[in-house]
Amino acid sequence: MAKDTEKKQGFVEHITPRDVDFAQWYTDVILKSELVDYAPVRGCMVIRPYGFAIWERIKEQLDRRFKETGHENVYMPMLIPESLLLKEAEHVEGFAPEVAWVTQGGSEKLQERLAVRPTSETIFCAMYAKWVGSWRDLPMKYNQWCSVMRWEKSTRPFLRTSEFLWQEGHTIHATGEEAQEETMRILDIYREVAEDELAMPVLVGRKSDKEKFAGARATYSMEAMMQDGKALQAGTSHNFGTNFAEAYNIQYLSKEGKLAYVHETSWGVSTRLIGAIIMTHGDERGLKLPPHIAPIQAVIVPVAAHKGGVMEKCAEIYAQLKAAGIRVKLDDRDTLSPGFKFNDWELKGVPVRVEIGPRDVENGQCVVFRRDTYEKQAVALTELSAMLPGLLEDIQRNMYALADAFRKTRITDVHTMDELTRAVDGGFARAMWCGDRACEDKIKELTAASSRNMPFDQTPIGDTCVCCGKKADKLIYFARAY
Amino acid sequence: MAKDTEKKQGFVEHITPRDVDFAQWYTDVILKSELVDYAPVRGCMVIRPYGFAIWERIKEQLDRRFKETGHENVYMPMLIPESLLLKEAEHVEGFAPEVAWVTQGGSEKLQERLAVRPTSETIFCAMYAKWVGSWRDLPMKYNQWCSVMRWEKSTRPFLRTSEFLWQEGHTIHATGEEAQEETMRILDIYREVAEDELAMPVLVGRKSDKEKFAGARATYSMEAMMQDGKALQAGTSHNFGTNFAEAYNIQYLSKEGKLAYVHETSWGVSTRLIGAIIMTHGDERGLKLPPHIAPIQAVIVPVAAHKGGVMEKCAEIYAQLKAAGIRVKLDDRDTLSPGFKFNDWELKGVPVRVEIGPRDVENGQCVVFRRDTYEKQAVALTELSAMLPGLLEDIQRNMYALADAFRKTRITDVHTMDELTRAVDGGFARAMWCGDRACEDKIKELTAASSRNMPFDQTPIGDTCVCCGKKADKLIYFARAY
Repeated sequence: MAKDTEKKQGFVEHITPRDVDFAQWYTDVILKSELVDYAPVRGCMVIRPYGFAIWERIKEQLDRRFKETGHENVYMPMLIPESLLLKEAEHVEGFAPEVAWVTQGGSEKLQERLAVRPTSETIFCAMYAKWVGSWRDLPMKYNQWCSVMRWEKSTRPFLRTSEFLWQEGHTIHATGEEAQEETMRILDIYREVAEDELAMPVLVGRKSDKEKFAGARATYSMEAMMQDGKALQAGTSHNFGTNFAEAYNIQYLSKEGKLAYVHETSWGVSTRLIGAIIMTHGDERGLKLPPHIAPIQAVIVPVAAHKGGVMEKCAEIYAQLKAAGIRVKLDDRDTLSPGFKFNDWELKGVPVRVEIGPRDVENGQCVVFRRDTYEKQAVALTELSAMLPGLLEDIQRNMYALADAFRKTRITDVHTMDELTRAVDGGFARAMWCGDRACEDKIKELTAASSRNMPFDQTPIGDTCVCCGKKADKLIYFARAY
Repeated sequence: MAKDTEKKQGFVEHITPRDVDFAQWYTDVILKSELVDYAPVRGCMVIRPYGFAIWERIKEQLDRRFKETGHENVYMPMLIPESLLLKEAEHVEGFAPEVAWVTQGGSEKLQERLAVRPTSETIFCAMYAKWVGSWRDLPMKYNQWCSVMRWEKSTRPFLRTSEFLWQEGHTIHATGEEAQEETMRILDIYREVAEDELAMPVLVGRKSDKEKFAGARATYSMEAMMQDGKALQAGTSHNFGTNFAEAYNIQYLSKEGKLAYVHETSWGVSTRLIGAIIMTHGDERGLKLPPHIAPIQAVIVPVAAHKGGVMEKCAEIYAQLKAAGIRVKLDDRDTLSPGFKFNDWELKGVPVRVEIGPRDVENGQCVVFRRDTYEKQAVALTELSAMLPGLLEDIQRNMYALADAFRKTRITDVHTMDELTRAVDGGFARAMWCGDRACEDKIKELTAASSRNMPFDQTPIGDTCVCCGKKADKLIYFARAY
């Protein structure tokens, strides 16, 4: 809840239009819809009830799928001794610059610095080395939900903060094939949750060596397009091969009685997904939440609530919808006008609003407003609880379709640097690339766009590199990115 | 899973009997049942899948009740600036000695030290001060699930570790009455979960001033009795009055238009509850888990699995029980004997074992073993899925009854220090107390027992203090404690 005093001073406070200043629009929306607030700690955020409820829904969707595919949750310590972090050279190089260090415990100065985990590969590796014996112990497929800390210079809530919430899965396998299969299975779970639950189309594919995770053999990502045409990396799945196993000595006794290194994967998505939802679907009125993860799917707003029978009918309908399994709220605040409430719940992105006034009670009907299209329709009260689930599914599908249609208009096949430069100004460029890092660097320097990923369907759109003009056989996306 | 190689070397590894060395029994059980492992970080624990699954069940039970009573989840930053921590004097005095400090972020030495949260009153207060405006904003009832860090000198998994998982609720209210009501409501939720879900009887009551939380006006606790007769504080609920509101300036505009301080509560339970379950119910064979929170409620063990029809029947029964909503596992490991598996699942405390062999398949029956009483009975396979839910409830009730009966024999009314000294050697003493801290200190010094709490039913059992002999009107429990 915002301060009541402020609320009375006339809502809806102004939201900067998207086309005037997209970044400011984002900030206005997340603060005014009370998803998040700034914390009195540099670069950290407070996730408020409404924001956290979205995270709980996302978590449920993912956790269920992880468990269905044989993963188990664990909890690893948040502090990692420096010596343990240092064992895999590439990994430490990638993360050391952004580690927060604990150097004192109580009044005692520590002998060894402890890192607040930026990610937990190292500690999972240490434990796997202890736990794994023979091939019969494999695979081990563990996940944890926790917070991690990366000391970022410039931060924005949900998109880049010093502390954020995420899940990190870490698995070990007997063979490279199984590890690759796991890496792909998780990428597909991520894609499915993004598309089916968040109504957010994503491009899945493999990262270039430049953009892969520190210590990985291969990184795969899903990339979403925000409404400003920039890319947001929304989830990653890594195949480490035996890189970490060699550094941390994770060996198992094979069926043939030989010692062998395990093959490892790791993968994660974070509260960043909330930022992605906002920038994929939101509009001038504020948030627009996909019904599958909306904490409130339908809000009932009484009109002329003081008139006889209105509140009683609202309460009755509330009970009906709740019984029908809909996440419903009755807005019975008695100091606010219906108009104020309409704006408030549109700002908060609730997919459906049900308005009930005295005449509706008389006529046995209500007005149903859908947030995605702004359409209103009269619905008989006796039919409401039967029609709402279908309406919510329709909204879910429509939101995906809108985002997908938007994205289609902003992806351009390019063959020259000129075309690429124009394409990444508000969209993604699809191009052929020779595979050289020098070309990636040059494109970044000239256009501020980075390579996003290489789709699995590598049907070529040409045979020369968009940058150097040499022979090229890699199809890849470039975009400016969050 | 333990290392397969170790497992083959002959299970069940020896568990120290409880009456030989209770502490060693505890350590044997938590490690061998694979709830937990030691981490390569001083005083921290790794919660393994089986241990974490218990925590997830406990969390579900609590979270549901919190939400039903109008609480909302949030997430606050894990780092707290030193200056913010220092605002409430009593609080900081209580926690400063055990704070882990972050002093470096990346390569930068921080201007101000940041505490890894030992608890989050201070940051909740800072945000509440920002969020609350008028009486209409109240109450705010927030909770978070997170990890906290307390730099402990001597640690034991689940009971006392440098890092542990918990929930911490923080609420603000317009009046002292409402805050007190909230404090009691939560204490009752804790008691209900302990008794109904963990099958663990608890004594609820008010802490002495000596034992209350740093900064609280009043602390209430639930105290459970472990099988060695020692007390374990299993949950606390605090009423802060306006202590923190004054230190952090959390004021609201009352209905009458006056500025007033809010009344605040906080409350928490932690992964310590897992330790409490182990020490309340476990026996020489290992864990004994109450069905309501057991990750696996029934395990199916095939006997002579290679014989025709056995595995097929087991798989069929598995599907039936799963469909009946029972958390069931089919142990189809093909390198282990049934005897080994029996021991393994008894060690892991699974409430019910279903044995199915070739003759059972022929006769259309199975053998059902209950972990609480070691009783076996033959059950027709056609009746199994209908009878198991009732059996699980019976086990749940019986486990509570056993723990309650044990506790009854170990609580003694005492009137002299001699009686008290004998009573706390393996049990709780109930005594009259004058209310002076000097007497608490003396009792602690002489017997190592501390005051636990003062029950709400204060019917006196005498009128003089068990320690000083002066007039006394407080009924209180003393015990040695974890």
